[in-house]
Amino acid sequence: MTNSDKERLCVSEEKVRRFVNRALISADVEEGVAKLTTDGLVSASVRGVDSHGIRLLPHYLLELESGRINPKPDYEFECTAPAVGQFDADNTYGIAAGMRAMESAIDLAKEQGSGHVSVRNSSHNGMMAYFSLAAAKEDMIGIAMTHTSANTRPPNSTRPFFGSNPISVAAPMLDEGPFCFDAATSAVTFNEVRKLRDSGEQLPPNVAANADGHETRDPHEATQLLPFGGYKGFGLSMVVEIFTGLLSGMDVGRDVSEMYGESISEPRQLGHYYSAINIDSFTNPSVFKRRLQDLAEEVRSEPRLDNDQPNMIPGDPEKAAAKERKKRGIPISDHDLEKFDEIADTYDLDPLTD
Amino acid sequence: MTNSDKERLCVSEEKVRRFVNRALISADVEEGVAKLTTDGLVSASVRGVDSHGIRLLPHYLLELESGRINPKPDYEFECTAPAVGQFDADNTYGIAAGMRAMESAIDLAKEQGSGHVSVRNSSHNGMMAYFSLAAAKEDMIGIAMTHTSANTRPPNSTRPFFGSNPISVAAPMLDEGPFCFDAATSAVTFNEVRKLRDSGEQLPPNVAANADGHETRDPHEATQLLPFGGYKGFGLSMVVEIFTGLLSGMDVGRDVSEMYGESISEPRQLGHYYSAINIDSFTNPSVFKRRLQDLAEEVRSEPRLDNDQPNMIPGDPEKAAAKERKKRGIPISDHDLEKFDEIADTYDLDPLTD
Repeated sequence: MTNSDKERLCVSEEKVRRFVNRALISADVEEGVAKLTTDGLVSASVRGVDSHGIRLLPHYLLELESGRINPKPDYEFECTAPAVGQFDADNTYGIAAGMRAMESAIDLAKEQGSGHVSVRNSSHNGMMAYFSLAAAKEDMIGIAMTHTSANTRPPNSTRPFFGSNPISVAAPMLDEGPFCFDAATSAVTFNEVRKLRDSGEQLPPNVAANADGHETRDPHEATQLLPFGGYKGFGLSMVVEIFTGLLSGMDVGRDVSEMYGESISEPRQLGHYYSAINIDSFTNPSVFKRRLQDLAEEVRSEPRLDNDQPNMIPGDPEKAAAKERKKRGIPISDHDLEKFDEIADTYDLDPLTD
Repeated sequence: MTNSDKERLCVSEEKVRRFVNRALISADVEEGVAKLTTDGLVSASVRGVDSHGIRLLPHYLLELESGRINPKPDYEFECTAPAVGQFDADNTYGIAAGMRAMESAIDLAKEQGSGHVSVRNSSHNGMMAYFSLAAAKEDMIGIAMTHTSANTRPPNSTRPFFGSNPISVAAPMLDEGPFCFDAATSAVTFNEVRKLRDSGEQLPPNVAANADGHETRDPHEATQLLPFGGYKGFGLSMVVEIFTGLLSGMDVGRDVSEMYGESISEPRQLGHYYSAINIDSFTNPSVFKRRLQDLAEEVRSEPRLDNDQPNMIPGDPEKAAAKERKKRGIPISDHDLEKFDEIADTYDLDPLTD
């Protein structure tokens, strides 16, 4: 639990879940879409991924009111090969459409050993781990990717070309929640830049650039991000664009639509890629989970450079946050609380903190 | 063409290919295995990836003479699900077994939309791009991964745990060879560290550590590597271990066998993962290739930070090297030339430079 967590009001997961779901239902979102969208946002908040959590609810409702989001989608799913499907999200919330697509990928993988579903005509789909973890719960390796609007500068360019294009890979373990890699291909996110603006701290080296494209350590000067690990992270961001933008037939690179700004009444028409690999087709899943558990514990018990810091595997920070937040509740900032009160007013709901 | 290329003797690709193949055949390697192993090594040299090229021939022959490598393997392939297969390399050269496995993955993808083949009981499999490019030539997205012996330190540890665990993803373009991402998940390779030792230059920041685990800029002091981009690269190296070591049932982490050293008579028993995704199951391959071509040209023509440096996409440096080397030949170092002369002596071959 961070210091800022301690200072903030905490509300139980159940209460938050009920509030978000009621807000979406009251805004006329179809029940199944509301349920999955709520689950995706609240799951992110519980795992400590606040950037993709319930703080997005006001914006999600604004997108709905502005006509960008279709609250009652007519999904289309076509199985185009035994292990492949194409999913049309009909411009509803990307989280809801994405989970339906991942469920289809899991179903294909049960029969074929692997399943791959491309999603078109979608919108912001939140935290990638939400989808990869769903496959891991079925004893599969889950993969989730999306493109995002341009915010990250290629190694020798002066302006953004690809987005933070995140990728997640999850795999089941024996005695705890899944291994879960979930990373933007940008070095940091703009949320982290904004946090440093507020705290008055400097940016780490090689994570952001100013408007001319030159690296900067000043968070106030930073207008674009750098890829993580230089040209390798840039290469991965283009891999993600290929799987998400090109396979789905959506716009790519600098043409990917913005989340915020004037075009909020326009559908974003994003593309995503979801994949499930059935472990049972390769090896005994119990043996796999035991061995991954052993591997994780070996990494964690390796000699430490800084004895005060734990050795972690992907997903460990989120597991720690989830343990804490399931007990103490989800911390809500004053700013978010104000927004949630406005939502309660608009849709005639009991306030979150009642 | 680098300065050191210009100073070195260049030998035509055809001549190099003939020499490597004859050496393997004379060492009693089965014809098909020799052909693919030659092709893999020479392809790496042509693409400028010298670390994985023909400089490995002396070591490959040593591994054969020492009994590690089975020159006449009895492959086993079992299709365990419609889109998944398991391939037993019977301890032959990993390059040859790997290409056979990728061919099986491509065959599965033609029918099912995707194909995934896990390889067990394998050995060093060279440059990952060799396999991913084979899928791209069939209008598929190709993926290749392998684990390697521990040489890279986790973020807060003092010693290596995972290897440089590389991953390659290739996809076809309309007017040129495929897009090809191919990267170690370590920040650099030991080959690059050795080069800086020779040139007397410093290491870049955050790429290597000394024996105590502390970051070092002195290439002579560097005994281990750091993951690229910090914890994200570390996470990816563990993803690669999951796909290669765990799905194949081979040893993982610090237990992965060494390429060099005393155990050279023991089979390495490595695991690899090869995957092919059929573009035709998602979208029209001609449209895909046109759009990827356009995207690449857009990236290349973005405004430049340093006007003397090109804007590149993954695979561009290797395409430039291949263009040059197909024309002028493959540069051979004095050290390698000496080794090749010894091989010519041992196996009674015409010397490479005859």
